[in-house]
Amino acid sequence: MKRGCTDLEVAGVAARIEALGLRPSVSRGEERTVVGVIGDDRLADAGTLEALPGVSGCVRVLAPYKLASRDSHPSRTVVTIGEGEGAVRVGADAVAVIAGPCAVESWAQLEAVARAAKAAGARLLRGGAFKPRTSPYAFQGLGEEGLRLLARARGETGLPVVTEVMTAEMVPLVEEHADALQVGARNMQNFDLLRACGKARKPVLLKRGLSATLEELLMAAEYVLAGGNARVILCERGIRTYEKATRNTLDLSAVPALKELSHLPVMVDPSHGTGKRSLVTPMALAAVAAGADGLLVEVHPDPAHALSDGPQSLTPDGLVDLMARVRAVAAAVGRSA
Amino acid sequence: MKRGCTDLEVAGVAARIEALGLRPSVSRGEERTVVGVIGDDRLADAGTLEALPGVSGCVRVLAPYKLASRDSHPSRTVVTIGEGEGAVRVGADAVAVIAGPCAVESWAQLEAVARAAKAAGARLLRGGAFKPRTSPYAFQGLGEEGLRLLARARGETGLPVVTEVMTAEMVPLVEEHADALQVGARNMQNFDLLRACGKARKPVLLKRGLSATLEELLMAAEYVLAGGNARVILCERGIRTYEKATRNTLDLSAVPALKELSHLPVMVDPSHGTGKRSLVTPMALAAVAAGADGLLVEVHPDPAHALSDGPQSLTPDGLVDLMARVRAVAAAVGRSA
Amino acid sequence: MKRGCTDLEVAGVAARIEALGLRPSVSRGEERTVVGVIGDDRLADAGTLEALPGVSGCVRVLAPYKLASRDSHPSRTVVTIGEGEGAVRVGADAVAVIAGPCAVESWAQLEAVARAAKAAGARLLRGGAFKPRTSPYAFQGLGEEGLRLLARARGETGLPVVTEVMTAEMVPLVEEHADALQVGARNMQNFDLLRACGKARKPVLLKRGLSATLEELLMAAEYVLAGGNARVILCERGIRTYEKATRNTLDLSAVPALKELSHLPVMVDPSHGTGKRSLVTPMALAAVAAGADGLLVEVHPDPAHALSDGPQSLTPDGLVDLMARVRAVAAAVGRSA
Amino acid sequence: MKRGCTDLEVAGVAARIEALGLRPSVSRGEERTVVGVIGDDRLADAGTLEALPGVSGCVRVLAPYKLASRDSHPSRTVVTIGEGEGAVRVGADAVAVIAGPCAVESWAQLEAVARAAKAAGARLLRGGAFKPRTSPYAFQGLGEEGLRLLARARGETGLPVVTEVMTAEMVPLVEEHADALQVGARNMQNFDLLRACGKARKPVLLKRGLSATLEELLMAAEYVLAGGNARVILCERGIRTYEKATRNTLDLSAVPALKELSHLPVMVDPSHGTGKRSLVTPMALAAVAAGADGLLVEVHPDPAHALSDGPQSLTPDGLVDLMARVRAVAAAVGRSA
Repeated sequence: MKRGCTDLEVAGVAARIEALGLRPSVSRGEERTVVGVIGDDRLADAGTLEALPGVSGCVRVLAPYKLASRDSHPSRTVVTIGEGEGAVRVGADAVAVIAGPCAVESWAQLEAVARAAKAAGARLLRGGAFKPRTSPYAFQGLGEEGLRLLARARGETGLPVVTEVMTAEMVPLVEEHADALQVGARNMQNFDLLRACGKARKPVLLKRGLSATLEELLMAAEYVLAGGNARVILCERGIRTYEKATRNTLDLSAVPALKELSHLPVMVDPSHGTGKRSLVTPMALAAVAAGADGLLVEVHPDPAHALSDGPQSLTPDGLVDLMARVRAVAAAVGRSA
Repeated sequence: MKRGCTDLEVAGVAARIEALGLRPSVSRGEERTVVGVIGDDRLADAGTLEALPGVSGCVRVLAPYKLASRDSHPSRTVVTIGEGEGAVRVGADAVAVIAGPCAVESWAQLEAVARAAKAAGARLLRGGAFKPRTSPYAFQGLGEEGLRLLARARGETGLPVVTEVMTAEMVPLVEEHADALQVGARNMQNFDLLRACGKARKPVLLKRGLSATLEELLMAAEYVLAGGNARVILCERGIRTYEKATRNTLDLSAVPALKELSHLPVMVDPSHGTGKRSLVTPMALAAVAAGADGLLVEVHPDPAHALSDGPQSLTPDGLVDLMARVRAVAAAVGRSA
Repeated sequence: MKRGCTDLEVAGVAARIEALGLRPSVSRGEERTVVGVIGDDRLADAGTLEALPGVSGCVRVLAPYKLASRDSHPSRTVVTIGEGEGAVRVGADAVAVIAGPCAVESWAQLEAVARAAKAAGARLLRGGAFKPRTSPYAFQGLGEEGLRLLARARGETGLPVVTEVMTAEMVPLVEEHADALQVGARNMQNFDLLRACGKARKPVLLKRGLSATLEELLMAAEYVLAGGNARVILCERGIRTYEKATRNTLDLSAVPALKELSHLPVMVDPSHGTGKRSLVTPMALAAVAAGADGLLVEVHPDPAHALSDGPQSLTPDGLVDLMARVRAVAAAVGRSA
Repeated sequence: MKRGCTDLEVAGVAARIEALGLRPSVSRGEERTVVGVIGDDRLADAGTLEALPGVSGCVRVLAPYKLASRDSHPSRTVVTIGEGEGAVRVGADAVAVIAGPCAVESWAQLEAVARAAKAAGARLLRGGAFKPRTSPYAFQGLGEEGLRLLARARGETGLPVVTEVMTAEMVPLVEEHADALQVGARNMQNFDLLRACGKARKPVLLKRGLSATLEELLMAAEYVLAGGNARVILCERGIRTYEKATRNTLDLSAVPALKELSHLPVMVDPSHGTGKRSLVTPMALAAVAAGADGLLVEVHPDPAHALSDGPQSLTPDGLVDLMARVRAVAAAVGRSA
């Protein structure tokens, strides 16, 4: 409560708390009065109380997400992508590497990358068929044709496929071809899309928004979980800061922090996270050391001619090198890769 | 080019520039070599060149947006919202104030606010029928019923209506009831929605994303303009920073900066920009002094019982006070309100 | 407390609170237990409690500053700079404009600006004698000679002088020549300097650090106030964000927010705040509309040849224009200039 | 140059470039004209050119630092701290761990930590004698007595001592007792202090400012190097972002990025970088995997009763665990610890 609040104002706040089905607890200090809320404060919109006369501020004690929280689900969740022999368990001992081009450009390009990914030991194939691009004049992806090429690449290599879905109405089409649906950073709060993913039958790889807090990321996951889809993987991919030396600032402390707050597996995308090829492998190793359950790595057979994200794509040889080093660091932290 | 780049690498960059239909211009300095690109560099993806061997970095000279740029359209654009007598010209001399509740909650609530807005001198009515909410458990808006209430309020007051549209497929429904479509901050890079707005017959109020640069905001506007809808209004609504004393940091320098870069009108939302009722009026006045073409102000008959954004909503009396003071400041900078 | 905390842990926290001379108040909820602290929690280091077993987090109810707070000093403070006829009262009705070059370069330059400032109606003269520069190779200021030139300019124009002091040991020298001491943004948490300013006999203009919160700014002011110098003026000068279109993001909401939290006067520096000449006047007007008690404006007779900050300096004619427009906006908000 | 710039303006810019001892190179494009600067552009202040009529912006090709740059010093620098047998080479194969309390509180506390650090295998001892504190009411350190205790702890354990110096005039005192001088994040741009460190005979551990870019960090190092002290170690310690789940955002991509830009060794402080004990070890491992040459780790015998930074301090047992895991990860990336 504000300094000098009246008894009437305190009573008003207490009454509102009771009206919300919760229990108030008033503590009067020498300078200030504090009204506690006893019960499940997820039910109370903090804004509602802050708008009452005499209230100075409102602090949550419980996290506003429930299904995503470790409180409600103390053991770690393992999410399986794909079926049968090639199925990959994300969140288990092995660090799962998803490799592939930023955008699917052609069968020749995709096949080259898919075979290289398989040979290097990556367990999943990524590739964008629908591309969110800042400029309306930039290459927007091959669309449905890209999805078909991805499915064909899975057929040839056995690698399950992860690809981005940009709108709610595309969910059925994308889940028909892909083994997991990726929600991109710009869509992390596209609630319509999140709800559709909650109804999907495939796992969801949810990327943190460019300026999303960990709490907001977990609230976005809560939309999917509350919709009925329990198979959510969180992904740190760099946040926006003032620093210009890197495209984004890869927030690796998000990995152990998310694992404290939530039972969901956490992956890291060092390609978007740094925007620079020479930083991808060091940050991939750092992610594994920090406890990441998997990595998303962009690979292109000829980065200099890539239609998007060339500067941050590894070559197939670069991927072989990354995998060897990831295996060593994974072993050092008691995991495999 | 990187220090110590080879002649072959320089030639490779020059060749790629020519392949893109542009002209290279090589300058050799004592320590570094620079390759200029002559022509319309909007056609060249900076990333493409940065991925070439020997290249150290790539700097754009032209802005990547064209239709939104003042270069291509030196005179200021005026966007008209509504029709007939009540039509409002945004970007003309008068500062246009859009007032209304964060969310439409009921006819009683909306009618009270609409009448108060009209009486106070606001020229447009706002109100959310579809609400993007961080939590899946929060009030999500009345949906289509909210749109009908807004249309009814326009009928009673004559105020044209601005309301948010959250997905591409809702554009036809929303433009049937509303006079302008608002694209919210979280959807500023929902490219599917932007494309749909480009096909809409109503003006678009485009809010800056929480961590969008001015260039990205103008690129988002470019999507709408390139789609064929020339009626775009930009809106600053606060960006995300480390500061915790306000909900967001309202970046008022965006107003004169956008007006230098673009011909489009610029509005300001001091309610979301600050998140705190006591700061709304000072920042509204500041926005007008900085050159804003309009204001978006949240008003609620009973903020303490609002279903969303109560802490930042003005009361009807607060709106009367704001309008009087806005008129004085507008007059001081040679405008009306 | 953490979920599942033991009675022993709760008792341990209560005991520590008592050991700090405060009173604990335990509330047990269904899911969590909360321990309140009754008394002056400024005495308790939040970190101390957070480190105890079973504690999940610690939230302050009282602001950690006392002398700077409006709680302890509800009426507004007016700080007088200079003596006799030319004395300027900052925080009173009139908006005080401090004008001058970024750096004092020569007597000719300073005299030209000082006369222009006086003629335009500015009330105070600024100019840097000691310059903090990011590069060791950049012009570092004229030093003591610069101070003498400033004092001479005051003699000729009657304008009190404000200039930066960079180290504690320079305080006596600077206060000998100047009428107010400026603490620059990079030194906002140079605690040694703040303590020395607390012992100074001249007012202190304290600029907000590049990434300082309002609370940290007020804590820095608290150092000066606690040292015995009650004459502190706060100054917003732009914060660092991801936005690249401006040098900094001028956070004008800091003006009304600081005035709610503190009784100290608040000025704004639109020159550093934007870094761009064309944005200085719009943002100066916006600052006045938001309630600023004064402005710091950089002026140079020939900005194209300035030794520092040329791109953001107004010409003398630009200052005349700014002053005329500032007067109009000040009148519109019930003040003069 | 701006669109539509005149020939006279282009000639003016060219003339100014020549006046600076550099060579201009004019390229005329279809829409814009670009003037290149050939020569050592470190000599040219970008601001100077940006202030000229007709200029739209100015882009640096060379980094503004020279001595800190890898361009001028391609091989990696190793900085030795301490003398004789216990001397530690930072930047060599072994990852150097500096452990110790945030603040020296008493001989009993320091001795316990120093012995634990030695036993766990840390190679250097840290501890604050002079503490920069946000609040004037918080514990400010034991001062000179703290320095004496540190020297005594070195005598007992053989561990060289690193401690913070807060002002230029304290440099002689601190270097008398310590083996390396730490410049704290808040002082990264205290240029007076940097200059004094440039004259010091001991190595300097320079921490990145809370919102400093990598370029600014390297410019700060340049001050020390230009002063004549070649022994500078850079230290990433977390930057300020909007995220609230951690005290700061530890930017580990700074490690490989700084190693590309500079020849200086790079350390990481996961204690301040995260502010949370449970995140220290995962981020320490990540730092080593990313290529860090050393770690700064806060250790306290009884974190719950620490006078500062208790929540982020490891216990002695926690340090033993960290060291064992750091050794494993170091080995995995081809180093020791």
